Amino acid sequence: MPQVQSQGSHHVVIVGGGFGGLYAAKSLRHPSVKVTVIDKRNFHLFQPLLYQVATGTVSPADISSPLRGILGRNRNTKVLLDEVLDLDPKSKKIVLKGSVLSYDSLIMATGVSHHYFGNDQWQDIAPGLKTVEDALQMRGRIFSAFEAAEGETDPERRKALLTFVVVGGGPTGVELAGAIAELANQTLKGDFRNIDTTEAEVILIEGLDRVLPPFAPELSVDAKDALERLGVTVRTGAMVTDITEESVAIRCGEDTEVIPSHTALWAAGVKASRMGAVLAERTGAELDRSGRVIVNPDLSVPDYEDIFVVGDLANFPHQGERPLPGVAPVAMQEGSYVAKRILKRLANETLAPFKYVDRGSMAVIGQNEAVVDLGFMKFSGPLAWFLWIFAHIYYLIEFDNKLVVMTQWAWNYVTRNRGARLITGQEVGSQAPREVTASKESAKV
Amino acid sequence: MPQVQSQGSHHVVIVGGGFGGLYAAKSLRHPSVKVTVIDKRNFHLFQPLLYQVATGTVSPADISSPLRGILGRNRNTKVLLDEVLDLDPKSKKIVLKGSVLSYDSLIMATGVSHHYFGNDQWQDIAPGLKTVEDALQMRGRIFSAFEAAEGETDPERRKALLTFVVVGGGPTGVELAGAIAELANQTLKGDFRNIDTTEAEVILIEGLDRVLPPFAPELSVDAKDALERLGVTVRTGAMVTDITEESVAIRCGEDTEVIPSHTALWAAGVKASRMGAVLAERTGAELDRSGRVIVNPDLSVPDYEDIFVVGDLANFPHQGERPLPGVAPVAMQEGSYVAKRILKRLANETLAPFKYVDRGSMAVIGQNEAVVDLGFMKFSGPLAWFLWIFAHIYYLIEFDNKLVVMTQWAWNYVTRNRGARLITGQEVGSQAPREVTASKESAKV
Repeated sequence: MPQVQSQGSHHVVIVGGGFGGLYAAKSLRHPSVKVTVIDKRNFHLFQPLLYQVATGTVSPADISSPLRGILGRNRNTKVLLDEVLDLDPKSKKIVLKGSVLSYDSLIMATGVSHHYFGNDQWQDIAPGLKTVEDALQMRGRIFSAFEAAEGETDPERRKALLTFVVVGGGPTGVELAGAIAELANQTLKGDFRNIDTTEAEVILIEGLDRVLPPFAPELSVDAKDALERLGVTVRTGAMVTDITEESVAIRCGEDTEVIPSHTALWAAGVKASRMGAVLAERTGAELDRSGRVIVNPDLSVPDYEDIFVVGDLANFPHQGERPLPGVAPVAMQEGSYVAKRILKRLANETLAPFKYVDRGSMAVIGQNEAVVDLGFMKFSGPLAWFLWIFAHIYYLIEFDNKLVVMTQWAWNYVTRNRGARLITGQEVGSQAPREVTASKESAKV
Repeated sequence: MPQVQSQGSHHVVIVGGGFGGLYAAKSLRHPSVKVTVIDKRNFHLFQPLLYQVATGTVSPADISSPLRGILGRNRNTKVLLDEVLDLDPKSKKIVLKGSVLSYDSLIMATGVSHHYFGNDQWQDIAPGLKTVEDALQMRGRIFSAFEAAEGETDPERRKALLTFVVVGGGPTGVELAGAIAELANQTLKGDFRNIDTTEAEVILIEGLDRVLPPFAPELSVDAKDALERLGVTVRTGAMVTDITEESVAIRCGEDTEVIPSHTALWAAGVKASRMGAVLAERTGAELDRSGRVIVNPDLSVPDYEDIFVVGDLANFPHQGERPLPGVAPVAMQEGSYVAKRILKRLANETLAPFKYVDRGSMAVIGQNEAVVDLGFMKFSGPLAWFLWIFAHIYYLIEFDNKLVVMTQWAWNYVTRNRGARLITGQEVGSQAPREVTASKESAKV
């Protein structure tokens, strides 16, 4: 029997160091396995707070932690900075950029990327928010728009520069829209001389009939009210039909409208990362419409009990209901489950199918404003906000930046300041904010 | 007389938001002038700590502060995000990218950039350390080298990957070399599985016969000893003759040597920013060998009493001795002096020529290791280190990030951790670390 092996010889390869991969690796700190974690980045990113990087509250490193640091004490675990190109499930090998690696068990946790629904030309105009680079680009766009408005004399262009359109009313879109409104109304107030930043308009576009569609309807109402109190214009039932460098076109039912705006931000769709398609091709696994892999009750791939998919890349049919959402708690629990499943199998023990324990969902709108859905209890306002803060600090403990982030937050809370509103990386050609350009040679001026 | 003007109508234009420009702007908070600060960046950078960004201790935002935030309360002051292309001293106008601006007094504070002594091809191989982007690129290079070494099987290539050559034994070079040695010997120890990071070699190259040439000779000896205790190889009297992607060639007297190294970092030469040449051409001002403008005793430009040069861009003959060094305290004092000079002139009062008050120099080598030269007193070791920390925190107070930086430092001191060791921006084409590449599409893997 292949499961009975000498101690530590069972090699588990984990592809992806996000919440799913990392929780799997942490739970595999066990003498019966050796583990290799492969990621293209050398750090784990706490994605739920990425919108705070995009809006200048915290720095990338405040919500990131080096993978080697997190896993340093797991002596059975190696971290490999590499990219997976292909896999051969028959011979149990994955193909990396520079080498080929054998596995006994494989955990795929490569997540999702943006999806522009067939309009990939919008990608450069309306950046999404998945990576640190995305967030820095978004940050540059937002603050450059205010700078360009300060220098603009034409009132129409100035208004368009001060109009921010956020596409997608899920948690990320709501958090972004709220944070930009707070920037304009509070943080930047008084910083400019020619413009009144409180005149900036933030428009949140959602295709369905309410924001935060996964939440209970009454919380969607609360979130909309809170956004509107912050000055955000919420447009539900509106589909984006075109995005250019100077406008966003939308359709509401029969009506169409063109919103002059120089800053469109994408928080709408996601699709599975490339590994989903590779898995489907090599194992015959079925993909859903978003390219996610439809997995077995134990999160393995059909016909391959040694290949698991966890996190956003997995479509886990949730007791006949919709698949589990692509959020951190799902990925964490799936990662831990698969680790346990592998260890049990090595010990010739069984494990019940994966079952997600839903401890609730939350989304933050602004300072003192959040919505929390615990299932048995739903509420919004300052208490929800404190719970949101608490939960995020609690999970950041895992990533050793808690102290710094807490200080930063406390500081920002007291001063309503955002120290991280740097416009950087402008010399990066096409990624440069459109209104402000800089060349490396003269960056000192 | 042009000096007698109605209140607030005298327009002072400051080009550059570094220490010189910022201290001038702060000191010009006075009803008799209106001020415009022009910078290509929207933030002031606390350059003395930039090496800590390059070595993963702090984030760019921790040592930066938005110019609009710093100057927000100066209601007579505008900040303009723009680039100065030219000036016409006769008609008192400067040419910006998008407009032309008139001034009554002009303060040029555009600083210096790297100088490769005619070997500009080294620029891409051996990055310098002047901007946030420089520091992030250096950070990526350093941590990518360790990652590449971990995956390298050829022992010679692995050794070259673990060899870091710092060119230039001034304060920046000493600080960089010390910080990289601490990284290798302490922070990263235990993070890798295939390499022993303590085997990394850090080589500091200095052309003169001692490190920290501007300091007293006994402190140079102390600094060299401290560096060697950290494991740094100090090579004085050595000139770099060539740098390639895989080696650094040096010449010591008659001997030549090629050091296999994949990571060369440049801390050697600086030259004046482009505005020095523009000033020379337009005003006839004389430049020194480094392109700095030789200024009058009141820091104005010969023949143009309304144009001042401060900071690294100025060559101020120091009582018949060498020109003042390009350090923050000189720039701060020059900026404040020129502001005072302008206000006095408007009030028809005189002001004695500029005189630099030297409160001493310091350079840090590592934890508990620094050298301090107060003139009347010279010392090194833990006390010098605490003084260095104290002085830097004191000046950071100006830039409102003190609390965060203090926490970060305290945290790092206790844990010997460096949370900011992210490798980011890899998709940036030619700026990518050579050993690790990544494309945006698959950045999640």
